[in-house]
Amino acid sequence: MVIDLNADLGEGFGIWRLGDDLALLDIVTSANVACGFHAGDPVTIRRTCAAAVDRGVSIGAQVSYRDIAHFGRREMDVEQEELCAEVLYQLAAVDGIARAMGGRVSYVKPHGALYNRICRDRDQASAVIEAVADYDPSLPVLTLPGSVVHEVAAAAGVPTITEAFADRAYTPQGTLVPRREPGAVVHDPEEVSARAVRMAVDKSVVAADGSVVPVSPRSICLHGDTPDAVRLARGVRDDLLAAGVVLQAFA
Amino acid sequence: MVIDLNADLGEGFGIWRLGDDLALLDIVTSANVACGFHAGDPVTIRRTCAAAVDRGVSIGAQVSYRDIAHFGRREMDVEQEELCAEVLYQLAAVDGIARAMGGRVSYVKPHGALYNRICRDRDQASAVIEAVADYDPSLPVLTLPGSVVHEVAAAAGVPTITEAFADRAYTPQGTLVPRREPGAVVHDPEEVSARAVRMAVDKSVVAADGSVVPVSPRSICLHGDTPDAVRLARGVRDDLLAAGVVLQAFA
Amino acid sequence: MVIDLNADLGEGFGIWRLGDDLALLDIVTSANVACGFHAGDPVTIRRTCAAAVDRGVSIGAQVSYRDIAHFGRREMDVEQEELCAEVLYQLAAVDGIARAMGGRVSYVKPHGALYNRICRDRDQASAVIEAVADYDPSLPVLTLPGSVVHEVAAAAGVPTITEAFADRAYTPQGTLVPRREPGAVVHDPEEVSARAVRMAVDKSVVAADGSVVPVSPRSICLHGDTPDAVRLARGVRDDLLAAGVVLQAFA
Amino acid sequence: MVIDLNADLGEGFGIWRLGDDLALLDIVTSANVACGFHAGDPVTIRRTCAAAVDRGVSIGAQVSYRDIAHFGRREMDVEQEELCAEVLYQLAAVDGIARAMGGRVSYVKPHGALYNRICRDRDQASAVIEAVADYDPSLPVLTLPGSVVHEVAAAAGVPTITEAFADRAYTPQGTLVPRREPGAVVHDPEEVSARAVRMAVDKSVVAADGSVVPVSPRSICLHGDTPDAVRLARGVRDDLLAAGVVLQAFA
Repeated sequence: MVIDLNADLGEGFGIWRLGDDLALLDIVTSANVACGFHAGDPVTIRRTCAAAVDRGVSIGAQVSYRDIAHFGRREMDVEQEELCAEVLYQLAAVDGIARAMGGRVSYVKPHGALYNRICRDRDQASAVIEAVADYDPSLPVLTLPGSVVHEVAAAAGVPTITEAFADRAYTPQGTLVPRREPGAVVHDPEEVSARAVRMAVDKSVVAADGSVVPVSPRSICLHGDTPDAVRLARGVRDDLLAAGVVLQAFA
Repeated sequence: MVIDLNADLGEGFGIWRLGDDLALLDIVTSANVACGFHAGDPVTIRRTCAAAVDRGVSIGAQVSYRDIAHFGRREMDVEQEELCAEVLYQLAAVDGIARAMGGRVSYVKPHGALYNRICRDRDQASAVIEAVADYDPSLPVLTLPGSVVHEVAAAAGVPTITEAFADRAYTPQGTLVPRREPGAVVHDPEEVSARAVRMAVDKSVVAADGSVVPVSPRSICLHGDTPDAVRLARGVRDDLLAAGVVLQAFA
Repeated sequence: MVIDLNADLGEGFGIWRLGDDLALLDIVTSANVACGFHAGDPVTIRRTCAAAVDRGVSIGAQVSYRDIAHFGRREMDVEQEELCAEVLYQLAAVDGIARAMGGRVSYVKPHGALYNRICRDRDQASAVIEAVADYDPSLPVLTLPGSVVHEVAAAAGVPTITEAFADRAYTPQGTLVPRREPGAVVHDPEEVSARAVRMAVDKSVVAADGSVVPVSPRSICLHGDTPDAVRLARGVRDDLLAAGVVLQAFA
Repeated sequence: MVIDLNADLGEGFGIWRLGDDLALLDIVTSANVACGFHAGDPVTIRRTCAAAVDRGVSIGAQVSYRDIAHFGRREMDVEQEELCAEVLYQLAAVDGIARAMGGRVSYVKPHGALYNRICRDRDQASAVIEAVADYDPSLPVLTLPGSVVHEVAAAAGVPTITEAFADRAYTPQGTLVPRREPGAVVHDPEEVSARAVRMAVDKSVVAADGSVVPVSPRSICLHGDTPDAVRLARGVRDDLLAAGVVLQAFA
């Protein structure tokens, strides 16, 4: 029973901050570091990488559409060559900074609208995977099981790591209930913790209709952009440890 | 008699182009590739690096202030930690793309207002040199002899390469005549070629007052953002070769 | 027989230029001035407005998605409130500059991907029309006949002006043949001129299948981002005048 | 005894927030609304203007250098024509949005590094004043007494309003003690309130050396980007009212 906890970090920009990065770095085993395209200026990237290296937390490149104004939350019809180059640029920039701080990027996690889009859009998924393969084909991509990007990565020989969301409702088919539907997000901290433990120990989740759905995540994604979220994340960590789960980065 | 020819390349952005990159790549031995902060989007960087690798042209990271709106031409009072992180980010991004294309960044050339500022501002020079040293202390920085950044680099163990400008007037002290003064730029192609040959062969330049000033550049900087400039650059190359000078990258 | 000729202008950004604005201003009767979101920095907007005022050319606000990196050519799922505010911001900025130069914005022309999107997306069309209505409900919106934005504008009491494209192929239904299909763009200058004259005089266009389709544009859109395009635009103007058509702005 | 209280508002960007705008709008009489160049996206500007109009708070355009990445805090050597156009663009954009919300921009307050620069740089001061004069020469500019921008505005017939800072130490000459010097900022809420009351009632401030310096501000600037700052601002307001001072916008 080994699980990784990942969260988005370094998502400030310039003067603006988002979430309590240092608190989260004491909870997670993998840090998805924003690369400057949806959030994350160079000095924030550098500080976040240095703090992750200090704590032995794995560093991932949280690559995104180029969209500071909308936090990478709007899907964009970016052409394949352009998207590939944009992902490569971000990945290289954060890896270089991480190395200068004594670490390195050891995985890739697409962000926001790009994350969702490549679960179903083969062209954009190919662009992202081509960038990873060109940079370092041994870097795993963190994503949802059964998605198009999973297939594309497999065909290209790029490893994937599956993650699950303890605070999101699941359909009986094992996909996430869309955010706009009622009950899509689980807010009760104890319920979130219990779901995380079930995912890690029993390899299952109770879907919105009450059915039990098998899941086998190697990582669980936590959110940390509010004080409540940090407390919730800490609760998940504590309850996983209490259940005998070993917290360990995958990369 | 060995000299390098360097020029700024990949200085388009999005839909906009600047200069004839492919024509210049057939002339120079070193390409200063814009890194995305004053010009150069990821797809342009990727294409420029691929074309340079194809032709065996050395790739340098043309790092800049963060200023797409003003092409990096305005001096900015950026704090040292911030400037260091910004230079590191750019250097890493372009090096990563160059490596994915089969090459690598083999030197650093600061751009525009940053180039001028670090010739005299010790804090900003230190920020740039710290970034290079953190990334790869064996990478040379291309700059003017006798400048503050030269001293700072020497103290940090970062190599420097001196360059000269065949199309710029020199003072008797061996510094450039400021652009705003009359006669600061030499426009006649034959005169520019003759000056380049003299720099490479006699290690000297005729200053604005007629005196002969010693210079010993390892590289001569060419400009290429107009059709005339490309013709002028080709003339310099041809005349250097005719004078028996060997054109060879320094890195 | 009165027709307006409109073209996109002021589409440089910072150091970069696109097209020959002054040549086009001597041809068109309406200038779609880029507002800074896909192209057009403030100093370019100011110069373009001043030149348009000098020549008595009408000024339109060419509003766009926020996307300098991709020239507003990628569709984006921007939320309605956000898109409305972005359009309002652009419209107000260019109108204020135009007024300071002695003119004013007298119409609105959505740009690129936004232009296409609001022909079919009611939410985004509503956002654009709400911005225009909030700013000045008497400002007409230049767009295609029969589009969703036409309906939305009519319901809101915002006037619309229909335009046609002399260099684009039409379907028998009177819509444009998509750019990705063969023959979508007419390149022969004489044919483009002849189509423009037919649109203005006979109120019809020959569709891709040879059928004659009625059109009744108040304005014809010209492109001007290449030297050839300027020549082509001048030919259209000359041939319209020779056919007795009166060139006159609609606003 | 009439005084205005002004504060910077709408300084978020995209997903990021800064300060409690609604709390501050219940305290101040004038809102310096960020215009999008150092902070403030269009939807934030629109909401801030709407909330100010609701509460009868005056709206000012908080114009800045173009520098989202550094919050307008770095001085930049922007050319005069460019700076003038950039200020005009921002002023027009926010005024247009304010008018669409039922209000209007009734003054201009330069932000951050631009505010400081135009106190001593005649070229940049002229650029800012030219923009205001071109847009609406009746709009007052809020700034420090005795500054270069004051002189330039007077020569151009643009009115100025003088402000003071209750939380900043003053020199015996009546200028602000630079932020980098010890004691430059007064943190004790009661002392700040007392200084504000003295400024409004006695038209004087106790300088760092204990001498009493005459000041006659029409407005006092408050800061509001932390919870403490909001409490401090509320204390200043309450103590001014208790001292019989009338709080009233100048515009």
